Amino acid sequence: MRLADLGARVIKIERPGKGDACRQLAIKNLWLDESSLLFHTINRNKESFAADLKSKDDVEIVKRLIAKADVVTHNFRPGIMEKVGLDYASVKKLNEKIIYAEISGYGKKGPWKNKPGQDLLLQSLSGLTFTSGDKDHDPVPFGIAIADIICGTHLAQAVLAALIRRHRKGIGAFIELSLLESLLDFQFELLTTYFSSNQLPERSKHNNGHTLLSAPYGIYKTANGFISIAMVQLDKLSTALGCTELALFPQQDAFKRRDEIKKVINHHLESQPAPYWVNKLQQSGVWATEVFNWSQLKKEDAYAALEMEQIVGRGQNQFITTRCPIRINRKKLLASRAAPSLGADNEKITIELNTTA
Amino acid sequence: MRLADLGARVIKIERPGKGDACRQLAIKNLWLDESSLLFHTINRNKESFAADLKSKDDVEIVKRLIAKADVVTHNFRPGIMEKVGLDYASVKKLNEKIIYAEISGYGKKGPWKNKPGQDLLLQSLSGLTFTSGDKDHDPVPFGIAIADIICGTHLAQAVLAALIRRHRKGIGAFIELSLLESLLDFQFELLTTYFSSNQLPERSKHNNGHTLLSAPYGIYKTANGFISIAMVQLDKLSTALGCTELALFPQQDAFKRRDEIKKVINHHLESQPAPYWVNKLQQSGVWATEVFNWSQLKKEDAYAALEMEQIVGRGQNQFITTRCPIRINRKKLLASRAAPSLGADNEKITIELNTTA
Repeated sequence: MRLADLGARVIKIERPGKGDACRQLAIKNLWLDESSLLFHTINRNKESFAADLKSKDDVEIVKRLIAKADVVTHNFRPGIMEKVGLDYASVKKLNEKIIYAEISGYGKKGPWKNKPGQDLLLQSLSGLTFTSGDKDHDPVPFGIAIADIICGTHLAQAVLAALIRRHRKGIGAFIELSLLESLLDFQFELLTTYFSSNQLPERSKHNNGHTLLSAPYGIYKTANGFISIAMVQLDKLSTALGCTELALFPQQDAFKRRDEIKKVINHHLESQPAPYWVNKLQQSGVWATEVFNWSQLKKEDAYAALEMEQIVGRGQNQFITTRCPIRINRKKLLASRAAPSLGADNEKITIELNTTA
Repeated sequence: MRLADLGARVIKIERPGKGDACRQLAIKNLWLDESSLLFHTINRNKESFAADLKSKDDVEIVKRLIAKADVVTHNFRPGIMEKVGLDYASVKKLNEKIIYAEISGYGKKGPWKNKPGQDLLLQSLSGLTFTSGDKDHDPVPFGIAIADIICGTHLAQAVLAALIRRHRKGIGAFIELSLLESLLDFQFELLTTYFSSNQLPERSKHNNGHTLLSAPYGIYKTANGFISIAMVQLDKLSTALGCTELALFPQQDAFKRRDEIKKVINHHLESQPAPYWVNKLQQSGVWATEVFNWSQLKKEDAYAALEMEQIVGRGQNQFITTRCPIRINRKKLLASRAAPSLGADNEKITIELNTTA
């Protein structure tokens, strides 16, 4: 999706009949046409070519497509592409300068190589679930498919870097990524601290914001609504909040005694609502803000100023989604073309192949 | 860091005397040399050029550097680079084909443009803190600097894409990103569902794994240790766990009655330890696994097989960190060069400028 946002022509190869399984994966029973809203969300601005990788004829057509492509990506389990004859070694014979990028769950060696590469399982194995939430909470997974997303961004980076190298040196590239390696890289700051200290990070008892940061870093409940407070010296915070008890803690104890300190702040903030505290804190130059859900965020002029929403699709198949976050030369990168129906581009692509062969 | 991992020569411009503030930002009081381990973690494989942007002479030298550069990036607040005379319009006069990329906190228009662009505050304003944790938990921030990291990956993507365009068309680019836009893009699946349904996502009462997914998706406590269970039909799960009570829930209620269903699973799993359940579930082909912290993960052969750790630095200034998650042509991208000391490369770079002017 991101490569298409940035201007690439992206052709999705799908099996005839059912297509990408994600077409049938509906969330909250939201559908757009014969495919789910979720499928449409992820597949804007792509073409669809239906081909059966179990049919020799179809594989031949896919090979002719690859012969003219700049980039091939896939995320089959190890061994599948070899079986179909579309692994890197085979594809390189058709197109020597191809950039070939593949994502596995856990790398292609070692005892986990055939485990299912599913986001929650990856979060669970990578240690990530011990970084969020409070001490007495069970491990807390990120409520967003972080392994899928972060590995996808790494793939885009690698593909783009390889294209630059090809421009310069005229050579292709074989790129390998895995969800697990991407999640470990994602935790690089915490992991490097762990490698050096040999101490597992501990979530604070209350208001955990980051396992390695001192009080007050975290989110706090007020008389009405929540606020977050980032890094600030305790004496400055004490003055800003008018909380004398806070001033009794020496700054050097801000990490060691963070549970106690956060409890004092919690208690103090109970007396007034969120806007009252945020106003006081911001006036004193403390990094603090309200905690919003999307309904609250959408009401803010600051949200409107971003113009972050775009309409994708046409006629009855329209929906609102976010746009690419990148602006180039002051222009937003918009992509109003909806996800394709299954095989929508077979005819066009077949003609292209036959006329330019 | 990622651009350096991928082969770019990266020169960090720092103020003389103190340098990048991150040099003094120590976590758990971990230092390597005169700079913190955290600074070293983020700045491997870069050069340092000390220059005072308040001095005209120094700005002139920086301009000469930029005249020869491919890319300039910065994350000053709106207005600062204009004041120094290093904004895009000024820099373009020195180097017409420059790729100039800047990150702000909240975009450059609207009432939030001067708010501090700090990770926790961005998480709090973007709605993200209502996606993780259980229903009765306060909003839960991600325990990793997700806004900083995800926006950094978008910057790398945009810069690489612009370099490709420059190769093709001979033109530069002005790239603008903000932490807030990147965090909204990061939530694109959930946000698109919200735009369409107008319903805020609700965290499940127990074992929340993803606000929009049905039971059993989540992490569960066992007699000893935790396990995670991803998407699976309730009847299949019932058989795999030997939990007849589960079979009483029709599949179509798996979202609506997820609190009840998860409670039943919770109760059932209390009787045996994690490996017992994972074994049973995996034998039935259910997507499930143990939940590890890093100490447990490090003991696994599967972790060793990834060879994810690298040693950075030399002599007494060595430390272990993760490597770039990308492999190209079956080679890991390693970067053993430590972060530079402040101004370490001034002399070399000055000579380069003078000999090639």
